[in-house]
Amino acid sequence: MLVYGKNVLKDIELKKIRRVYLAENFKDKEIISYLEQNHIHYFYRNKNQLDKMINGNHQGVIIEMDEYEYAPFEKALESNFIVALDHLEDVHNFGAIIRTCEAAGINTILIPKDRSVRVNEIVMKTSCGALDRVQIVLVNNLCEALKKLQKENYFVYSAFMDGEDFETIDYADKKVLVIGNEGKGVSKIIENITDVRVSIPMRGKVNSLNASVAAGILIFKMK
Amino acid sequence: MLVYGKNVLKDIELKKIRRVYLAENFKDKEIISYLEQNHIHYFYRNKNQLDKMINGNHQGVIIEMDEYEYAPFEKALESNFIVALDHLEDVHNFGAIIRTCEAAGINTILIPKDRSVRVNEIVMKTSCGALDRVQIVLVNNLCEALKKLQKENYFVYSAFMDGEDFETIDYADKKVLVIGNEGKGVSKIIENITDVRVSIPMRGKVNSLNASVAAGILIFKMK
Repeated sequence: MLVYGKNVLKDIELKKIRRVYLAENFKDKEIISYLEQNHIHYFYRNKNQLDKMINGNHQGVIIEMDEYEYAPFEKALESNFIVALDHLEDVHNFGAIIRTCEAAGINTILIPKDRSVRVNEIVMKTSCGALDRVQIVLVNNLCEALKKLQKENYFVYSAFMDGEDFETIDYADKKVLVIGNEGKGVSKIIENITDVRVSIPMRGKVNSLNASVAAGILIFKMK
Repeated sequence: MLVYGKNVLKDIELKKIRRVYLAENFKDKEIISYLEQNHIHYFYRNKNQLDKMINGNHQGVIIEMDEYEYAPFEKALESNFIVALDHLEDVHNFGAIIRTCEAAGINTILIPKDRSVRVNEIVMKTSCGALDRVQIVLVNNLCEALKKLQKENYFVYSAFMDGEDFETIDYADKKVLVIGNEGKGVSKIIENITDVRVSIPMRGKVNSLNASVAAGILIFKMK
């Protein structure tokens, strides 16, 4: 997998870096000495070659790293607070939610295999290195995964437009927060097994927040 | 200004719509009857022509509308809670913050003229119609504008990494929340006139939230 950018380079665990490509006119001494000190193989390429490798503002630094390894479901049980994304579509939202989880001290996110964001280079970039400290668990069926968690005494809180006011709820210690798809919200099948429907009271008329903003507000309240 | 998408069409105030371009194979009867009922002029164009007009998933609907009109500074004084963006760069963040303000019942955002996001078609799109209910005030100098607000008894709260815990502050009724640039945070000159530096305590190591997520968490606490 290719990722890019100076800050991203420094955020990646060293053992995951295979090699780095620098623009031929790359002059940032700090980066070059970082590469040398850590014995990272690096190669110069001209700007055209770099531009072909990646679609984004690479700042002259492209990193080839190991493919992302999803965590097995059992690892989720080590976390008391889990965030589940019910068929989220936007990789920028995914990246921002990973970053929020890391900042809030939450280290497990569940995503379903089908019709969902996956960890790719944009997620890697927008999560700003937070992926090293947040594990992503990929499950075949999100509803079944949530049921298993309920058997392990997790409470499932799902974000809805018309649920209970998130500020007045007494949250359980072991819990899952489900954030729905950007357009459709939390799916019916997940709603049916939800323990508490939570809601951020809105005063406006547009009545929906960006998914990663809503997740941030709920996560920082529930943590 | 061109904006696009089915939902955006319905969110725009009718009087601001000049004309609409539809893909020649466009079949959504609900949209077409909406256009006809509201006497909006619409024209069919082939997909290539639409793709040239706009870079984005237009869903076969492109709307030509009036240029965005910024509100004069004096209008800001009608709001007790104002959000100021200190040289924000990312239009998606800007759109998400407008949406958050609308949902929280805040109707004024201050932005500086230079080195800052402006209202464009991406902002229009990502704010999902919230711009109709949130006024954007464009000021020559953000610091001077904040000083003027302080003279009118507004308290200036600025978001920092190491300020007071946002959950423990007793917020003033008349207040401004300053959100900094994505990379650099709140600028020194604004810091110098800030009344209270507010902070979201972080447990992780990455230690920064996406700007629109941080804004969302603070806004919903302070409102």
